[in-house]
Amino acid sequence: MTLIDKAFVTNCIFADNGNMNNEFKQLSGREFPRFSGIKTFFRLPIAQIQEKFDVALFGIPYDGGVSYRPGARFAPANVRDYSSLGRGFNMARGGVSIFDKLKIADIGDCSTVPIDQAQTYEKIEKFVTEVVSSDKRFVSIGGDHSTTLPVLRALRKKYNQPLNFIHFDAHLDTYPAAWGCEYHHGAFARHSVDEGLVNPKQMMQIGIRGPLASGDDLDFVKKNNIHVVTVDDIREGSLAEVIKKFPVFKGPTYISFDIDCLDPAYAPGTGTPVPGGLTTYETQRILRGLKIENLVGADIVEVCPPYDPSGITAMAAVDTMFELLCLMGENK
Amino acid sequence: MTLIDKAFVTNCIFADNGNMNNEFKQLSGREFPRFSGIKTFFRLPIAQIQEKFDVALFGIPYDGGVSYRPGARFAPANVRDYSSLGRGFNMARGGVSIFDKLKIADIGDCSTVPIDQAQTYEKIEKFVTEVVSSDKRFVSIGGDHSTTLPVLRALRKKYNQPLNFIHFDAHLDTYPAAWGCEYHHGAFARHSVDEGLVNPKQMMQIGIRGPLASGDDLDFVKKNNIHVVTVDDIREGSLAEVIKKFPVFKGPTYISFDIDCLDPAYAPGTGTPVPGGLTTYETQRILRGLKIENLVGADIVEVCPPYDPSGITAMAAVDTMFELLCLMGENK
Amino acid sequence: MTLIDKAFVTNCIFADNGNMNNEFKQLSGREFPRFSGIKTFFRLPIAQIQEKFDVALFGIPYDGGVSYRPGARFAPANVRDYSSLGRGFNMARGGVSIFDKLKIADIGDCSTVPIDQAQTYEKIEKFVTEVVSSDKRFVSIGGDHSTTLPVLRALRKKYNQPLNFIHFDAHLDTYPAAWGCEYHHGAFARHSVDEGLVNPKQMMQIGIRGPLASGDDLDFVKKNNIHVVTVDDIREGSLAEVIKKFPVFKGPTYISFDIDCLDPAYAPGTGTPVPGGLTTYETQRILRGLKIENLVGADIVEVCPPYDPSGITAMAAVDTMFELLCLMGENK
Amino acid sequence: MTLIDKAFVTNCIFADNGNMNNEFKQLSGREFPRFSGIKTFFRLPIAQIQEKFDVALFGIPYDGGVSYRPGARFAPANVRDYSSLGRGFNMARGGVSIFDKLKIADIGDCSTVPIDQAQTYEKIEKFVTEVVSSDKRFVSIGGDHSTTLPVLRALRKKYNQPLNFIHFDAHLDTYPAAWGCEYHHGAFARHSVDEGLVNPKQMMQIGIRGPLASGDDLDFVKKNNIHVVTVDDIREGSLAEVIKKFPVFKGPTYISFDIDCLDPAYAPGTGTPVPGGLTTYETQRILRGLKIENLVGADIVEVCPPYDPSGITAMAAVDTMFELLCLMGENK
Amino acid sequence: MTLIDKAFVTNCIFADNGNMNNEFKQLSGREFPRFSGIKTFFRLPIAQIQEKFDVALFGIPYDGGVSYRPGARFAPANVRDYSSLGRGFNMARGGVSIFDKLKIADIGDCSTVPIDQAQTYEKIEKFVTEVVSSDKRFVSIGGDHSTTLPVLRALRKKYNQPLNFIHFDAHLDTYPAAWGCEYHHGAFARHSVDEGLVNPKQMMQIGIRGPLASGDDLDFVKKNNIHVVTVDDIREGSLAEVIKKFPVFKGPTYISFDIDCLDPAYAPGTGTPVPGGLTTYETQRILRGLKIENLVGADIVEVCPPYDPSGITAMAAVDTMFELLCLMGENK
Amino acid sequence: MTLIDKAFVTNCIFADNGNMNNEFKQLSGREFPRFSGIKTFFRLPIAQIQEKFDVALFGIPYDGGVSYRPGARFAPANVRDYSSLGRGFNMARGGVSIFDKLKIADIGDCSTVPIDQAQTYEKIEKFVTEVVSSDKRFVSIGGDHSTTLPVLRALRKKYNQPLNFIHFDAHLDTYPAAWGCEYHHGAFARHSVDEGLVNPKQMMQIGIRGPLASGDDLDFVKKNNIHVVTVDDIREGSLAEVIKKFPVFKGPTYISFDIDCLDPAYAPGTGTPVPGGLTTYETQRILRGLKIENLVGADIVEVCPPYDPSGITAMAAVDTMFELLCLMGENK
Repeated sequence: MTLIDKAFVTNCIFADNGNMNNEFKQLSGREFPRFSGIKTFFRLPIAQIQEKFDVALFGIPYDGGVSYRPGARFAPANVRDYSSLGRGFNMARGGVSIFDKLKIADIGDCSTVPIDQAQTYEKIEKFVTEVVSSDKRFVSIGGDHSTTLPVLRALRKKYNQPLNFIHFDAHLDTYPAAWGCEYHHGAFARHSVDEGLVNPKQMMQIGIRGPLASGDDLDFVKKNNIHVVTVDDIREGSLAEVIKKFPVFKGPTYISFDIDCLDPAYAPGTGTPVPGGLTTYETQRILRGLKIENLVGADIVEVCPPYDPSGITAMAAVDTMFELLCLMGENK
Repeated sequence: MTLIDKAFVTNCIFADNGNMNNEFKQLSGREFPRFSGIKTFFRLPIAQIQEKFDVALFGIPYDGGVSYRPGARFAPANVRDYSSLGRGFNMARGGVSIFDKLKIADIGDCSTVPIDQAQTYEKIEKFVTEVVSSDKRFVSIGGDHSTTLPVLRALRKKYNQPLNFIHFDAHLDTYPAAWGCEYHHGAFARHSVDEGLVNPKQMMQIGIRGPLASGDDLDFVKKNNIHVVTVDDIREGSLAEVIKKFPVFKGPTYISFDIDCLDPAYAPGTGTPVPGGLTTYETQRILRGLKIENLVGADIVEVCPPYDPSGITAMAAVDTMFELLCLMGENK
Repeated sequence: MTLIDKAFVTNCIFADNGNMNNEFKQLSGREFPRFSGIKTFFRLPIAQIQEKFDVALFGIPYDGGVSYRPGARFAPANVRDYSSLGRGFNMARGGVSIFDKLKIADIGDCSTVPIDQAQTYEKIEKFVTEVVSSDKRFVSIGGDHSTTLPVLRALRKKYNQPLNFIHFDAHLDTYPAAWGCEYHHGAFARHSVDEGLVNPKQMMQIGIRGPLASGDDLDFVKKNNIHVVTVDDIREGSLAEVIKKFPVFKGPTYISFDIDCLDPAYAPGTGTPVPGGLTTYETQRILRGLKIENLVGADIVEVCPPYDPSGITAMAAVDTMFELLCLMGENK
Repeated sequence: MTLIDKAFVTNCIFADNGNMNNEFKQLSGREFPRFSGIKTFFRLPIAQIQEKFDVALFGIPYDGGVSYRPGARFAPANVRDYSSLGRGFNMARGGVSIFDKLKIADIGDCSTVPIDQAQTYEKIEKFVTEVVSSDKRFVSIGGDHSTTLPVLRALRKKYNQPLNFIHFDAHLDTYPAAWGCEYHHGAFARHSVDEGLVNPKQMMQIGIRGPLASGDDLDFVKKNNIHVVTVDDIREGSLAEVIKKFPVFKGPTYISFDIDCLDPAYAPGTGTPVPGGLTTYETQRILRGLKIENLVGADIVEVCPPYDPSGITAMAAVDTMFELLCLMGENK
Repeated sequence: MTLIDKAFVTNCIFADNGNMNNEFKQLSGREFPRFSGIKTFFRLPIAQIQEKFDVALFGIPYDGGVSYRPGARFAPANVRDYSSLGRGFNMARGGVSIFDKLKIADIGDCSTVPIDQAQTYEKIEKFVTEVVSSDKRFVSIGGDHSTTLPVLRALRKKYNQPLNFIHFDAHLDTYPAAWGCEYHHGAFARHSVDEGLVNPKQMMQIGIRGPLASGDDLDFVKKNNIHVVTVDDIREGSLAEVIKKFPVFKGPTYISFDIDCLDPAYAPGTGTPVPGGLTTYETQRILRGLKIENLVGADIVEVCPPYDPSGITAMAAVDTMFELLCLMGENK
Repeated sequence: MTLIDKAFVTNCIFADNGNMNNEFKQLSGREFPRFSGIKTFFRLPIAQIQEKFDVALFGIPYDGGVSYRPGARFAPANVRDYSSLGRGFNMARGGVSIFDKLKIADIGDCSTVPIDQAQTYEKIEKFVTEVVSSDKRFVSIGGDHSTTLPVLRALRKKYNQPLNFIHFDAHLDTYPAAWGCEYHHGAFARHSVDEGLVNPKQMMQIGIRGPLASGDDLDFVKKNNIHVVTVDDIREGSLAEVIKKFPVFKGPTYISFDIDCLDPAYAPGTGTPVPGGLTTYETQRILRGLKIENLVGADIVEVCPPYDPSGITAMAAVDTMFELLCLMGENK
């Protein structure tokens, strides 16, 4: 094979005639330095959705729903870039090599309309519907948190039941309409419950903290008996004990990981940071401690590169993506 | 015209005929996006000091006393800017809405003289005297820590007794004169004790750590029996236990919060950072745990925006300001 | 209550009883250091629109129309901040003191809806209508360039004729619809002509350069005989000669200054920079050389603070704002 | 076609069965916002070298030869990212649409060895040999300037004669060995002449300036009668006149564009910036003015992303890449 | 003494006739502000190695062995700069004044060859050999982690036995060869064991975490029975208990402190950050808890200034350097 | 010589027994990479003032006189750092090697008192007096522009006559007292004239532009017939012609170069930037064109590192320093 062919195969191609990189291996850092090559998630091949693999990775570059700092539209490109540092052997889970266990591919970005949320919602829902129609699981990178709603709509239809829902966030995201708009990034959780997309009884919100504009948001979660795990809750007693008490999630389950569940020290690059948050160590431990029988999809949202001068937020996102994939590797 | 009147006239305004925003509400983020509008602390109205309200917020933009990185002069503008993200409902205190409970206003900045500390000290003392003469409490944003001394001088006169004093800091600030100057930012605590402004027996220094230039600073606090709470002290045992042991502060009490009590990871934007510091979660918990009967004033100092590329230090300051206001809401 | 009234009440104030700063002076830097005080444009008073003054300054914080980097929503706050450095005596125009010649005030920001362009357009048009109804001229700070269209709609109604239009930009902004959306930031000039808001025969586009996506944009300006002044045109021969050839604009005239007419070296903080642009010196000279009988309004758009680490783009905006005010000072 | 198929085809694929994007179109910004999608140069398809197209784009991520600031290894990824802003219609050349005129593709990055220059040189020479063996022209993105030498070695073999050589740079790059190493980034031009890879009589160095360590570098160019065009030369008289005097380059010609020919104001993100340099406007005009009959290859080197906080250096590189492609479009 | 003499003596000189600053005092911050003066480590005098002092400080500016972000070559200059903030009185160790207890000097930087690792290795080994031949202990600032290997080679010869080795790191650094190169920065620990430079039975790796490329690295440490202390290990139970279990190190001992043992929140400025890491408080406590009878040398590596916008990584390095010196002060 | 001795000699030492580097050579970049070594100006030896050399380089780290952005206190350290890139062979002056022609040394920093301008002024005057008493010329790096006044006081005494004075600046620096303080950084030129330190008839101010607070500053220069060269003046006609008209300066002459004479695009890192300024190319040409018979001293002021993320301002300062030294090399 010529040098160029090698770059071609390993850098970024999957062809539908099946003769190239159909083992869905990462481009090796031992052969191609990690700063080189066209950037795909985890240096995995790009694939068409009809190919045979297990988990699709894609971006949803839309930040039209944010109330403060925009910029999450650049997250998919930025996380692809830093994911070149992402490796696959998880020491903390007894040595699973996730890219051996699962076939994973980058399928590109969902098309979006920066100016028009309604159009964007349609496109996201359609895109996710196509993904799950091919019986893939997926992890996506947003985008602001308003993008999770159409994802859940697609999943609700696919699974024909409300999903179990694990929601990492600093905010409850049950905020009322703002400026006459229902679908801003602080309201998606409320809509998810109200539209019956998720089951509030199998819903857990982790990392919640900080001042609210009023008590309304809290009233919503109380009324719906949603299980809220605040930072205070996590830091009462040992982390191991806290995690042990988490329930088992049995049906189709979705995880939405808003990067602002992390403290601004750990994730400065986000739209609406809240002091007093979690550490990456805590979210790693929690993600490793979750008991989920069927994780069908997950997203990481609100990574905002313009405010992340050293890339630590993007790296936290890559690490979280890795843990989410390991969770998928444990399904069943 | 008094100094405050002058600030009022030139900065801008609250109309004394009482027909405008006399409920001291925040500009609603649900109506005006949080990135919009002229920046006042917490989007509160600007008021003349003679108006009827409870707590005055103002800036003291002076950094002429620093020994290393200047820039704290930009803190009042920067904190005003980020305080647009500040909300009022404190979930962690059982749901108090502080801006309903207290009437709070922005009264602008104290005038300062960047070149001349003596003049600046006079202006600060006069400004604070005017504030407390109108029976307001206050929270100010410095400025370097040398600005706290004239504030305490004004309070000492008003209350006619040494104040109880809670001092968050990485440093003891009992350092000797430097370069022939007594009033640099590392000596204010020593002067506060020596001038009888604060009561060393009702004084607590929290967050202390790190190498000192010599043992002199420490000798001062030992000699005066000041209660020093180091980071080691806070991390022995559980946080809840540590807090439980804090004494009750009964007389007029002042809090000075040097942002460098936080670790540089949580507050990179400060003049003389010291590794090994507190987290925002810890200071939140401590602030919520303090038992103060009469908090008459507080400041947040040493926020240095040029070294805060993602604004996380400013956001920590806003969050602290909120907790200080909640403490004032619990007075009596 | 009108929109402006609302902004006035909540943002804060100029007292209508006329006894405060009714000479519309800048807060003096010789008395209050320029880093101090609540930030208004050029340290001017905040005023209600019904007060007696000549020129209103306001922000339009909306960036929902951008195709690449958002962030211009933070421009009004950022330009207010740096405008503290703005002085009033123009040596280059023979010594006019603009803040003596004209009464100028900050009237706050137009309310916007980050998620919804249609609502935002309505609000902008209404806000500007109120401004011009009170017979004020104005300079606004965007916002992305899509915000200029509703401004022109309001002016078209007020003046009952298409306006003369001077448009500084790297781009023609006559681009077709994108993603099914007509009103993105690269199409406003086309709509302004097509809606009859401006007179293409009294229209001049300055600073144009760079690769286009296709020839369509150019076809539009050719078809409409719009006077396009490219960077090449400006740098053929001496600047003085180029300026001398500019026509006299006689009727009501509007200037829209997209900061990206400047080279990225001079204005890195913008959404879609194009190398090979103008220098601030060139735009100063051009602005000083324009012959306009009746400049009724102007805007500065596409200032994007997250990409402006040293503030030079904001400072270029402040300087341009000053030159625009001087142009207004020469009306008639 | 499904949404995902669309993303697949347009985002990044060329399959060797010829049925996808074989017209080598850019992914349209009007359909997919420019911040979305897997990043390839100019949003062009990735292709295997054996496909039928005209110009190959690739990266050479190696910075082991720098004497001061490393980081150019990140340039290929960074320039790919910003090249999403790159459009194809060149107004300044009378309206050529370069991506219609030439079929251009991204072929990924040459593999390199960060620690070992000798190995890297072999790989580069082999890679370029493969590219030119398929009768493609190319533009590459370095890497530091030491990477140009093996490129020229490959071309020398292909064309069987020394090449004409146009070299944009602040430095002569004829510096002696340093630290016992011949092949640092300041010596490649000397080696290129000494190895007979380029014809010093058909060689032009543009943008030269600044202090040298000694007169040795200069002696080399004098001895070899190399045509040196300093910044002073360019700024004597009008740019048009200077350009008119450039010779016609008739045989196979190579351009190496060191981004530090630009002034640090225009290209801060480079390894060894030198004040007093060219503007992007000047290099655009020079590139448009060059008369080259057969441009066989070109590189852009020394783009150093860690020192380019607003991306203006990367954008200058993208713009230069576009002009180089337009030059190739004019061959013969 | 004249003012200039004073600056001369205190800023940076040690002369071999012994009459200047032969007490190896720090330049006093109380006399010369900490931002002033020529930058040496901790404002200590520069000395020739043959002078009489205890500990030599020097830099090893080489980053040619990194796999991702270069830049550590700037660490010695950067750490010297921030070490001006470094003080000598260690409150946490019962009040030792380290610069009174030990005579410490800055001896400059080891010469390196950025392009050539083999030459660099020789120079480092020779330089360290000269240092230890004069019976000095030392702390050096790298450089990437590949620089530790030749340091250990020199020590192995000096002490004529494998050293005890305490290794702080996020990574095991037992990675196989990459790109055909053995001596990249992720393999030094493997070589140190394989070459018999360190005693794997007296070796402890602290701070290990995160995904690996494969299980190979781990196999190596298991096979060699190296004592690995992961972040999980440190956070099981109380820190005090964990530390208590550390063994006593009796023979000649070396500490290599890779700054990436810290979490990216605490040390963003490093080449290959890994989320979920240690805090500076934890490494301080661990360093204070180590029981070492004869610490003969130490290094701090992988500080990468281009990614450290607020200097917090450099400050963590300075603080670590201080703790390492205190450990040396406790020898015997 | 051992490796360490070599580092010792070349990195940074001058010993008064005369046996080391008494030829005042730069540390060679060909032997020690430019990123290595203890940082002195231009990698020159540190010397005691009584040694035999021609020109002393030193820093004046004081920014207590600024009205807006502080930070110039860090300029000496920062310029020392970047001056490692500084070379000595000036191609543009026909090949002078300045470090061969003149013996130049770094003598450290003048001690200053950040809080107290009066004390600082005394120290500066004394320090400069000592320098010129030893018959050295000098170039210093400030510090803000208020530091030039005491320098001129020392020179006035030494030369016993008012000096010729060439002043590069955006501002006239003839501003009145501010906040009751005479000696802020915008007033030094007025004081220099009023105290008779400089001869207004042999005074030239270059680079002046921009809005003033009022006409007062201008009145002062008119009244004193000071030769003001605005940016407009420089850009009328060709640069060569403008320079040709400059007068010959015959007596002892001083140059003060405020970096803000440059446009913010070229020097973002300064305290009070003004758009529309000079380019580095223009100041190079002007500095090369000056005709000065006896340049006795010079300073570069207002370099403010916290606002200079890519170091281009520091590099402009280094380049200017080099041109100033070349001017000194041409004395007589």
